[in-house]
Amino acid sequence: MSDSESEAALIESLFAPLSLGAKGSFGLRDDVAFLPSPLHGHIVTQDQIIEGTHFLPNDPLDMIAKRLVRRNLSDLIAKGGVPTAAFLSLAWPKSRDRAGLTLFARGLGEDLAQLCGDCPLMGGDTSETSGPLVASLTMLGTGTTPTGQPVLRSGAQSGDVVVVTGVIGDAYLGLQARLDRLPASQVPGCVAFSLAPHPPSVALSPLIGRYANASIDVSDGLILDAQRIAIASSLRVDLTLEAMPLSTEAAAYQGLGSIQERALALATGGDDYQPLLTLTPVNFDAFKEAAATLGISATRIGKCTQGGGLQLTYDGLALEMPLHSGWQI
Amino acid sequence: MSDSESEAALIESLFAPLSLGAKGSFGLRDDVAFLPSPLHGHIVTQDQIIEGTHFLPNDPLDMIAKRLVRRNLSDLIAKGGVPTAAFLSLAWPKSRDRAGLTLFARGLGEDLAQLCGDCPLMGGDTSETSGPLVASLTMLGTGTTPTGQPVLRSGAQSGDVVVVTGVIGDAYLGLQARLDRLPASQVPGCVAFSLAPHPPSVALSPLIGRYANASIDVSDGLILDAQRIAIASSLRVDLTLEAMPLSTEAAAYQGLGSIQERALALATGGDDYQPLLTLTPVNFDAFKEAAATLGISATRIGKCTQGGGLQLTYDGLALEMPLHSGWQI
Repeated sequence: MSDSESEAALIESLFAPLSLGAKGSFGLRDDVAFLPSPLHGHIVTQDQIIEGTHFLPNDPLDMIAKRLVRRNLSDLIAKGGVPTAAFLSLAWPKSRDRAGLTLFARGLGEDLAQLCGDCPLMGGDTSETSGPLVASLTMLGTGTTPTGQPVLRSGAQSGDVVVVTGVIGDAYLGLQARLDRLPASQVPGCVAFSLAPHPPSVALSPLIGRYANASIDVSDGLILDAQRIAIASSLRVDLTLEAMPLSTEAAAYQGLGSIQERALALATGGDDYQPLLTLTPVNFDAFKEAAATLGISATRIGKCTQGGGLQLTYDGLALEMPLHSGWQI
Repeated sequence: MSDSESEAALIESLFAPLSLGAKGSFGLRDDVAFLPSPLHGHIVTQDQIIEGTHFLPNDPLDMIAKRLVRRNLSDLIAKGGVPTAAFLSLAWPKSRDRAGLTLFARGLGEDLAQLCGDCPLMGGDTSETSGPLVASLTMLGTGTTPTGQPVLRSGAQSGDVVVVTGVIGDAYLGLQARLDRLPASQVPGCVAFSLAPHPPSVALSPLIGRYANASIDVSDGLILDAQRIAIASSLRVDLTLEAMPLSTEAAAYQGLGSIQERALALATGGDDYQPLLTLTPVNFDAFKEAAATLGISATRIGKCTQGGGLQLTYDGLALEMPLHSGWQI
């Protein structure tokens, strides 16, 4: 970046507007922020994106910023949280220019405003790096359960149904197409989605806070994330992969081997950013109906019973757990 | 790192112990943390360290982690805050091994325990990078002013004295010696200090919260940080550099040119991690006496008056503002 523009000037022009005048942000002109206490407490999540690990070097910079926001927002929504404040740490490559930083800030601001309900950027740290771009976002929110506590992985009960919102697999198919591993012309919607996959509306959070016993966002792969609920809740989780909700494009795509192989690929692809929930059957009915009024689908894809571990079936046929069950780093 | 060890296993063995059993950390086994609301609110700071920008590639990894903690702690103490929770984002180079990560986690844990009053690590994100090490820490704390608000840069009043705790310049001299720009044998204490410069005890925070009108930590250089108070408070700040407190080693070192040139070098070196405060003269006396009972020195190095800008003198002689007044990225 230009030596003639100080860090303070950059923050003033690009990031201070994203504080949206929030009182405790001090216009991003001080060294700290002040967050007044909500009734119960803050739910806090923190996720980073790293060039070469989480995105491709040529991805558009506004989309990279959006991915960062959505990784965090997805965690918060899955836990029944509503965003209230964000903090950005940015290690910006010396080789990238100010126009790129402007684009990054624009993407960040658009998502914080539009997807996160005008969530202010309250602070952070911007520095230069000689290496790849690394950005970390800390997002705080308030809970929607009666105690303000987040909905955890560990709350599943025997008898719960396992439910996922939206569809699974589009981000995976889109990424494969962008890596030239399958024809982009057959999955154009997936390609667009995969640039910055997004969670459902934050309006879903209060329904999760009200109805769900356990929850996790599907970011590392449906199978791996379902396994995490099974482990944390000390229960057996059965997933019926034929019930996994697919987009029209994903359902029509024939290129991943047998129908079972396709299901396993999509269920381990990750970056879906849909909440994976367990609920009592009665609460599922209420949740599904309320989510439908928001235009959000909820699909039953499994159940919780006494025992342990994750079992996969497709139309009644038991499937081996794939060696690669999802993304762990 | 070894492919055989999952992210979850790494977190369990290296980072979960740093959560110190804090209830809302969920043992670092969930996707979010829960922070109960303190009486007024949280003060939040976030700073990162980047290999090649903030530390040298061969610096010991426990010292690198300590630098990260101390950068944040220094901000919090200067604002009158007492740490309550930390979150770590870590982009860990594939080229570094698990022993290095273990050392990093140990340094982090030692400082959070010993310098931050058993501050728990409540969450974060660990990922691999093909580039240099980047780590960001988000630190939350409670304020010690009557309203819980942080002491800002902008609160200085005309008539305030300008005060710094401890000594200035040791981190600069130590770094220069480590870069072979001056003989390490003449400043051994500075060399040791510069590996992980540390702020004063967190016991100082309540005194800052009680007595100071404005405050900033000296991290980018005394002159630049004093200028920031002048700008934020719309006042003139006069610094009398002959009063700048130096360690015995720094005072004895003769290698930086004239006595004025040495003062300017030390006052722009940065990484001092001492609070730079403005207080009424009466409050300064009380602060100084109370700080002394903690073994912390407080030295008057200037004053605030009507007007604007920063003026530098040495024994009454006006000094030009140096072209490089401190570190801005």
